[in-house]
Amino acid sequence: MLNFEFYNPARIVFGKGTEESVGERCESFGKNILLHYGGGSIKKNGVYDKVIKSLKDKNLNIFELDGVKPNPRLSLVREGIELCKEKNIDFILAVGGGSVIDSAKAIAIGAKYEGDIWDFFVKGIATKDAIPLGVVLTIPAAGSESSTSTVITNDEDNNYKRGMQSSHYIPKFAILNPEFCYSLPKYQIACGCCDILAHLMERYFTEVENVELSDRLIEGAVKTIMNNATIAYNDNTNYDAWAEIMWTGTIAHNNLLNMGRIGDWASHQIAHELSGIYDLTHGAALSIVIPAWMKYVYKHNIDKFYQFATRVFHIIDNDKEKAVLQMIERLESWYKELELPTKLKDVNIDNSKFEEMAQRAFLHKDVLGNFKKLYKEDVFNIYNLCV
Amino acid sequence: MLNFEFYNPARIVFGKGTEESVGERCESFGKNILLHYGGGSIKKNGVYDKVIKSLKDKNLNIFELDGVKPNPRLSLVREGIELCKEKNIDFILAVGGGSVIDSAKAIAIGAKYEGDIWDFFVKGIATKDAIPLGVVLTIPAAGSESSTSTVITNDEDNNYKRGMQSSHYIPKFAILNPEFCYSLPKYQIACGCCDILAHLMERYFTEVENVELSDRLIEGAVKTIMNNATIAYNDNTNYDAWAEIMWTGTIAHNNLLNMGRIGDWASHQIAHELSGIYDLTHGAALSIVIPAWMKYVYKHNIDKFYQFATRVFHIIDNDKEKAVLQMIERLESWYKELELPTKLKDVNIDNSKFEEMAQRAFLHKDVLGNFKKLYKEDVFNIYNLCV
Repeated sequence: MLNFEFYNPARIVFGKGTEESVGERCESFGKNILLHYGGGSIKKNGVYDKVIKSLKDKNLNIFELDGVKPNPRLSLVREGIELCKEKNIDFILAVGGGSVIDSAKAIAIGAKYEGDIWDFFVKGIATKDAIPLGVVLTIPAAGSESSTSTVITNDEDNNYKRGMQSSHYIPKFAILNPEFCYSLPKYQIACGCCDILAHLMERYFTEVENVELSDRLIEGAVKTIMNNATIAYNDNTNYDAWAEIMWTGTIAHNNLLNMGRIGDWASHQIAHELSGIYDLTHGAALSIVIPAWMKYVYKHNIDKFYQFATRVFHIIDNDKEKAVLQMIERLESWYKELELPTKLKDVNIDNSKFEEMAQRAFLHKDVLGNFKKLYKEDVFNIYNLCV
Repeated sequence: MLNFEFYNPARIVFGKGTEESVGERCESFGKNILLHYGGGSIKKNGVYDKVIKSLKDKNLNIFELDGVKPNPRLSLVREGIELCKEKNIDFILAVGGGSVIDSAKAIAIGAKYEGDIWDFFVKGIATKDAIPLGVVLTIPAAGSESSTSTVITNDEDNNYKRGMQSSHYIPKFAILNPEFCYSLPKYQIACGCCDILAHLMERYFTEVENVELSDRLIEGAVKTIMNNATIAYNDNTNYDAWAEIMWTGTIAHNNLLNMGRIGDWASHQIAHELSGIYDLTHGAALSIVIPAWMKYVYKHNIDKFYQFATRVFHIIDNDKEKAVLQMIERLESWYKELELPTKLKDVNIDNSKFEEMAQRAFLHKDVLGNFKKLYKEDVFNIYNLCV
């Protein structure tokens, strides 16, 4: 186990009716609230009205910025930054899923910075200050509700999709009412659960040894998300399944499960390039990339992969390689059950931009991944395994 | 899963050499530091010197209060409160295990309260303020380094041992260097690991249904503590085993694992009465009480016990009761491997005070436990199963 520092002061407010407290919680940070959200879904499912009522009950000044799309855009972030400066925003309330929260995080940092917000994503500058933010979560997936990270797509420059980390990004509170997930379309359920599973597996596959506790915690979380994704996919108003998914999504990405170890994260970057070029939903890019990544790297540390196959999938075989390949097959079957693509052909993407995507993945980096270090050729080979 | 609110802003600073930062961390809270610790062990193993050096490097004013004993006493807490008021203490640094930290927590609250500190333990008053505190942990066991709770023994009134909870008790930081555990005597290793396991099992046995994620996380933590306790017990300078034990001890008691569920905690209170009357170490009281409690209550929800037997101990049997009894036997064997008592006769305690202890357990309560509600007669019966 490596040395580590764990600090996560996000307050998780979980369960039915918890959104009623949102006005009171926002009020403690000031009067001027930027309400940030996506499109019409929160208006259709009633979440918008509930939030507005709670904010108005506290006589808060509400400034709205909607229009966040999946793979949230830098241009909207810039608009939010200007709005915050102009209206003296005290607190940002993100109502939505990971894209909305990530967009809100970038706005929160950008509004307290004199330079260009994109600098943080490509120049590794440390954040110094941020407008505090809170979350009402409607899509369990990205884990952004208590994470230190944000991912933004630069729609002004070739749709480069880049992430960054800062403890300033940890929301002050996150309200998680599983009922808010009932109206999610099947495709979003699948993509969200796939993302949660990916966050767990990216952490699991590490070269750091002697990480028994976090290995076992991740294994438990993987079983939970796989079981409950299937339930919610087939029964979208199952409160208990949604509760497990929401709580797992938060735990999967609040940094607890990567303490003392170094996660891999190559699959995320490889998938980001697919999303950047083809605007493919993050979860659907991951369900294609992860099996390919696994097939490409498992030999690098077969014992770790065999442990995963055994403990999570209960596959036992003297031939470890056979067990691992069976595990990957089972994982692909799970994706297929959720009607997610597992090959590029499933989403009509051909090999014409592999070279370009591999190039882009290394624009600001020399190497991808930590479990096995990957170079441009490796990434190109992995795209080829996705065909 | 029940509604819940999770908030734990303790900063966990984990690993080799992390104690070197303690002076800098304390300094950010003020100049006057109360250094609270037990007896000579931290002087013998060098921890005291390292901490003093780091505090002196920052020119802090150090006021020392030592003498904390296992089952920390109210009288010393009162002494600490007076000292804090007299010396205008800005920050309390607890260097030791759960007893030292619990004592420091009570001092921290008492120093900011005009009335009698014991009121909090028996009258359910809410805390309003506290002197901030930090921890250098030397004994992984109580989980007090990031928990909301403290347990104090009233040596002025019949040695009543009572606990209380407050978010004010969460330390600002906790420094966990597994090397500091190398000098622990075998008996303390065993008692500490037994306490950690108990914290996990108290949370596990709940009547709340649909708690898959936390069930699975607890199961993983139980396996980890059982595996690594045995390793450290037989190889006391095994860094990797101590790292697992320390991190598990913190996770076991920082409230994460009881979100959305209600733990039992009857065994703790039943064991507290043994410690109160006979000054028996907490861990050794638990290794006697827990198997007896299990035998007394398992029929109340055999499925939960069978799940534990199957998933943690891999015992599979069509006869669930047989499997559960086998699990309890395996647990007792684990205690015995660590040379912990599993019966009162092992520590030369007879049945003469069962009635008195059962009486005392209900002094400020009408009922014990949540998995199965226990009344005075039940507790008396459980003591009889401990013979």
